[in-house]
Amino acid sequence: MRYSRMLIPTVKEIPADAEVASHQLMIRAGLCRKVASGTYTYLPLGWRSLLKIIAIVREEMNKAGAQEIIVPSMQPLELWDKTGRSDDYGPTMFRFEDRHGRMNVLGPTAEEVFTTLIAGEVKSYKQLPINIYQITPKFRDEFRPRFGAIRSREFIMKDAYSFDVDPEGLDKSYQAMYDAYCRIFDRCGLEYVIVEAESGEMGGSGSHQFTVPCESGEDTIVYIEDGSYAANLERAEVDALPKGEADTEVPPAQEVHTPNVGTIDAVCGFLGSRPNDMIKTLIYSAAEQTIAALVRGDHELNPEKLTQIIGGEHIDLANELTIQEVTGAKVGFAGPIGITDKVSKMIIDHAVAAMAAGITGANKTDHHIKNVVPGRDFPLEGENIAVADIRFAGQGDTYKGKKLLFKKGIEVGQVFKLGTKYSKKLGAKFLDEEGNEKPCIMGCYGIGINRIFASAIELGKDDNGIIWPISIAPCEVIITSVNQDDEKVAQVAEDIYKQLLGKGIDVLLDDRVLRGGVKFKDADLIGIPIRVTVGQRSLAEGNVEIKLRSESESSKVSVDDATAKVIELVNELKEQLNV
Amino acid sequence: MRYSRMLIPTVKEIPADAEVASHQLMIRAGLCRKVASGTYTYLPLGWRSLLKIIAIVREEMNKAGAQEIIVPSMQPLELWDKTGRSDDYGPTMFRFEDRHGRMNVLGPTAEEVFTTLIAGEVKSYKQLPINIYQITPKFRDEFRPRFGAIRSREFIMKDAYSFDVDPEGLDKSYQAMYDAYCRIFDRCGLEYVIVEAESGEMGGSGSHQFTVPCESGEDTIVYIEDGSYAANLERAEVDALPKGEADTEVPPAQEVHTPNVGTIDAVCGFLGSRPNDMIKTLIYSAAEQTIAALVRGDHELNPEKLTQIIGGEHIDLANELTIQEVTGAKVGFAGPIGITDKVSKMIIDHAVAAMAAGITGANKTDHHIKNVVPGRDFPLEGENIAVADIRFAGQGDTYKGKKLLFKKGIEVGQVFKLGTKYSKKLGAKFLDEEGNEKPCIMGCYGIGINRIFASAIELGKDDNGIIWPISIAPCEVIITSVNQDDEKVAQVAEDIYKQLLGKGIDVLLDDRVLRGGVKFKDADLIGIPIRVTVGQRSLAEGNVEIKLRSESESSKVSVDDATAKVIELVNELKEQLNV
Repeated sequence: MRYSRMLIPTVKEIPADAEVASHQLMIRAGLCRKVASGTYTYLPLGWRSLLKIIAIVREEMNKAGAQEIIVPSMQPLELWDKTGRSDDYGPTMFRFEDRHGRMNVLGPTAEEVFTTLIAGEVKSYKQLPINIYQITPKFRDEFRPRFGAIRSREFIMKDAYSFDVDPEGLDKSYQAMYDAYCRIFDRCGLEYVIVEAESGEMGGSGSHQFTVPCESGEDTIVYIEDGSYAANLERAEVDALPKGEADTEVPPAQEVHTPNVGTIDAVCGFLGSRPNDMIKTLIYSAAEQTIAALVRGDHELNPEKLTQIIGGEHIDLANELTIQEVTGAKVGFAGPIGITDKVSKMIIDHAVAAMAAGITGANKTDHHIKNVVPGRDFPLEGENIAVADIRFAGQGDTYKGKKLLFKKGIEVGQVFKLGTKYSKKLGAKFLDEEGNEKPCIMGCYGIGINRIFASAIELGKDDNGIIWPISIAPCEVIITSVNQDDEKVAQVAEDIYKQLLGKGIDVLLDDRVLRGGVKFKDADLIGIPIRVTVGQRSLAEGNVEIKLRSESESSKVSVDDATAKVIELVNELKEQLNV
Repeated sequence: MRYSRMLIPTVKEIPADAEVASHQLMIRAGLCRKVASGTYTYLPLGWRSLLKIIAIVREEMNKAGAQEIIVPSMQPLELWDKTGRSDDYGPTMFRFEDRHGRMNVLGPTAEEVFTTLIAGEVKSYKQLPINIYQITPKFRDEFRPRFGAIRSREFIMKDAYSFDVDPEGLDKSYQAMYDAYCRIFDRCGLEYVIVEAESGEMGGSGSHQFTVPCESGEDTIVYIEDGSYAANLERAEVDALPKGEADTEVPPAQEVHTPNVGTIDAVCGFLGSRPNDMIKTLIYSAAEQTIAALVRGDHELNPEKLTQIIGGEHIDLANELTIQEVTGAKVGFAGPIGITDKVSKMIIDHAVAAMAAGITGANKTDHHIKNVVPGRDFPLEGENIAVADIRFAGQGDTYKGKKLLFKKGIEVGQVFKLGTKYSKKLGAKFLDEEGNEKPCIMGCYGIGINRIFASAIELGKDDNGIIWPISIAPCEVIITSVNQDDEKVAQVAEDIYKQLLGKGIDVLLDDRVLRGGVKFKDADLIGIPIRVTVGQRSLAEGNVEIKLRSESESSKVSVDDATAKVIELVNELKEQLNV
């Protein structure tokens, strides 16, 4: 490839709407351009990187025994209604009517279509296990798309679905994917951590998330210093707090008038209390349940944990009407006293149960109650009552007695044990050896192709631009001809270019007639791992210069040895990544 | 790949909704499954073929100097409003609102996004020419999706767009694509014809269509036996007919009462005339014009030709109100007499001008006029009047004096000279050497990936199934182990399988424990070009059998020679296709 003929629109300015480094560099290095909020065109260099990532993913998936297929992006809404995920996704799923009045969605993922396919084609245990996958665009109408390739509305995802006869089969399929993911991310040159994750609305019983730690990440990893525990924030468990003891006996619960004071902060201001003196009572609605959930005023409820506790049903914060029915008061004054028979379940966070006393809403507009003692003034046990871990871990929390630490990261992949959630609803059944009909046991496995791209930039960069891992760099080598208008320089650059091409090296020849300084800046910005510099000065001594993008020093090599030396370096860099 | 572990759901029954051979075989050979009207999942074998087609297209496009990028499928409607193509596509373009109330479309093609990209990035003639392309899903809400992969609602298209400084540059870019297309279709093993085509609503000045002749095609090719002319039906020109001469002088035009008789057939029935005695007057609306178009009663107006004649504006049949305004009568009674000042233009087909006399509508409800002599009773010349070729060629027509012949075909690719239609509207301009601002001269170039797939099946098939060209076959070789439960047979099959894999041959091992007959039927149905049969009988003599899918006879080869012989055959088949 000749730079002079390529569309590589590098720019000096940092784009105004690019908050994180990878987004800024994607634009500045001419890899991408924004089309609309959360949608991008990937230009020749950017797309070359993505194609290399896709090739690595495809190769490792195939090696792991998965079979590639492709399902339509445009899918009938009715399939999503069958599993209830039409509601779960809500406005995040793009929907539209076609000319014949049928409703369609743009697939944010593809459990429904894959499971329906298997329902139609698999009859017997003999056909299982099957693992099928695709590498296709996915569509999500994010409320706030941002961070360039990290949270966009149209992106390329590899999604795989495994179908097994029993949980042991699923364990094997899951492990095969887990191992393939490690190879994929290793080969892409990423440093990553694997953490336990919540399977959330995917349903299912187990999940791991592959996360690249970096400041620009939207995900939070929770871990213990010694490596004994790591989970994502949604999943991270916390120790129950020790039971608080009051200095003196707590006086009887007492109603106080708190006119127009409905938030934690407002109550604290009004009563002179602290958030950790408060008991927040949140009312949630599931399909057929109303749930009261209690967390301490300074804690945040974790909906994923609450979902798991109540059995996996999708939950939403209750609407005003439901809250009024349960509490008999305006929103902002809910409390646990006297509502256990008005809700399907009351789930109390450990930290609330551990409080010596607290302040709660009074279930009466403009009133709170103080001196509320959990277990005395409202029950901690009962048929529909449970004490559990339903909050997010926070600074100061421990797990198994050890301090929890936090860091940011980009989720690049996740594997899930789904179980039978989809196979039951969509009829993916098989006859076992005894002739009994059983639902397939499923797993699903996703990789965000564009996030690998963004993560690699986040991890490999300096003040001058990107530093690509060689496996997914747009090109392996750039030849910078410093004096392209000097015939001899141009010829030597051309010769080395042709020799490298002949050896199968992916090489970009910067043949533009521009000042050397401009060309060096561009080479650094686009981040090609190996640079060969051909210039009048070193050529006078019969040399060219070779430099790794990751190092500051270049070395002189004779023109005759240049090609061999570059090939050696390419192989070295590849070996480091196990490519 | 081991057949026993793969999802290859072959079926015996011909699917009820599959009208053409390629569609039937796609389903029967387990290559695809329908998801909804006009959308398909491509299963492992089908997707392997498509990936091979994509690889060939990519390779030849890159060789021709084009650069691959990817633009979003989801595109802002406002881009399409700027070029007016939002109206042109009408209900064929999927549209939807996102959560923030912005309107989006699913790209049926991508001139708007590509041209806007260039408008933003190209400033100078030095950056041109550029040819950029993508290979991505496209979406069209066809009124009647059919024929499987031939007319579907979601399909993979390679679309390229070239940007040049002048028409000579465009000619070069166009020719490079034309040549690349020939190589692509050759390598895919297709027999095709290249015909002149109308550029239609794409705008522009020239176009060629690459069409694979076959019975299932939806397109019609018009050609002259000696090869001196070939065009698609939309484009095919016809000679003007010789001026008809009446036997005796034509009496004066005479109004006749034709109550409730508004169609050609009805008038003929009522007056005892023939369709070729009639002059049809059709009223069309363009953005700012009303056009009367006259064709003979037995001819069909060609809207593409009419569009070209009036200057490329999008036309639609006029609505009832407009027709009444122009004719003063109900629909069905339009005629050319007295309306020249009520329309912007009157375009008269050559064949009408050549009529000695005819019957027309009277521009009066329930009335016609007979003995209408063109040139006597309505003008053939005038400021807003033209005689031209505006009808489809039909049986019996000639061009340059030679008989026109017709055959059906599948359009697999088309190249267009677009000119400045998009660059002007979307601001894709550059400064030339003298510093003058000029619009880029564009070309666009499309290939239907799924149509190559369907065409290859249409061309390569027999009663037993598909016969793939080796370049795009799901696998190059299938090893059929006839007695998989015989340890020796299984071992020999396995050995040859591993040897071929080691040599880089794309091989499928049919290791299923099934009767040989079933396995032969499947091998024939899925159409793998080379079959190696390992069975007890020939193995007793130390042999295996090798058979080409395209031939009926197999040959015996010793076990030791089998691998070498297969490799030889693979290379032979590839050489035949210039792969």
